[in-house]
Amino acid sequence: MARNPARRTALVDAAIEVLASEGARGLTFRAVDARAGVPVGTASNYFTNRDDLFMQAAARITVRVTPDPARVQEAMRPAPSRELVTELMRWLVRRMEDDRTGYLAMLELRLEATRRPALRDRLTRSVRTDVDESARFHQEAGLPGGPDDFMVLYLAMTGLLLEYFTLPDLLVASEAEAGLGAEPRPGSRIEAMVDRLVETVVSRVIPES
Amino acid sequence: MARNPARRTALVDAAIEVLASEGARGLTFRAVDARAGVPVGTASNYFTNRDDLFMQAAARITVRVTPDPARVQEAMRPAPSRELVTELMRWLVRRMEDDRTGYLAMLELRLEATRRPALRDRLTRSVRTDVDESARFHQEAGLPGGPDDFMVLYLAMTGLLLEYFTLPDLLVASEAEAGLGAEPRPGSRIEAMVDRLVETVVSRVIPES
Repeated sequence: MARNPARRTALVDAAIEVLASEGARGLTFRAVDARAGVPVGTASNYFTNRDDLFMQAAARITVRVTPDPARVQEAMRPAPSRELVTELMRWLVRRMEDDRTGYLAMLELRLEATRRPALRDRLTRSVRTDVDESARFHQEAGLPGGPDDFMVLYLAMTGLLLEYFTLPDLLVASEAEAGLGAEPRPGSRIEAMVDRLVETVVSRVIPES
Repeated sequence: MARNPARRTALVDAAIEVLASEGARGLTFRAVDARAGVPVGTASNYFTNRDDLFMQAAARITVRVTPDPARVQEAMRPAPSRELVTELMRWLVRRMEDDRTGYLAMLELRLEATRRPALRDRLTRSVRTDVDESARFHQEAGLPGGPDDFMVLYLAMTGLLLEYFTLPDLLVASEAEAGLGAEPRPGSRIEAMVDRLVETVVSRVIPES
């Protein structure tokens, strides 16, 4: 196996682009070589087989979407409150928007996981770690909402991101239905949805611990 | 275009199976013919092109997952309450479980919609109609929870179904985390999650209207 780490990362990032644009079935060594602009045969020096390519793509997306700890520290400066929960959820949406390709590639991987048990196990472990850490963070930071509120918030944000990235115009109607009316600034619709979501799920009062 | 309606439905159902098992990129006329067990060239008599195949698959999944109105009438016999909301959400999960192939095919279509504007418009219209009708139904039936609660419930169920059908073992951990412990009966884990979700989002009291 070739060991140039920068080249490996470039190839895995190319694989993520292929996943997002072509779907899981389009992810072949040849497609990765073409997307990365490297000679045919290069990917075969870095991945043992397609399974390995899916696994490394999954690991890389996890790295890409994990926020910088320094940015997390900075985000946590205000006192814990419902407003801070809203800010954190808006930030989550912005991070996904900044890596739309990574988000769509992860959805492709979830579907491919229904066909590949090893990939399913890997994704389950990494999503579980992510959810558990977020739940612990929520509690230790003293953010309002108990474990059940956190679970509802997590599931509703998962649903919101799925709607937003696959059928973005759906939220316009949902909003009209909810009586919010049209907002001119791009991105403001999803922010308004996040605000309503947090307002509905998380009580304004910080519970005594 | 050939006009045998039973044959057309069989071909579209075969297309949905191809979508769920092979992914959107695997959906070709040849794959549909093979899955339906009909002579090569049959699908080309029923669909003008791949776009048409995607559109007809989307329309058919919508028909498949829409519950029989008589069953809805029957489900609505008990007085409106949080318990009835729980029953309706459990029923939604069972309908999706009974048509797991249709659920996975719809996720494939959502991803394909990011590449095909006409498909995105069609899916947006059909999901919007579905959400609007569900919201109206919720309100007219006098079920507890206002428009914001309905929105949170809808988004959280969307997230829960995504987790359940792509990474089913994730819910085991979420439950352990929430202190529920293991449940032996198959399917009971997802039901317990639905119960907690509704309990958290929907107040037990029916608001005065």
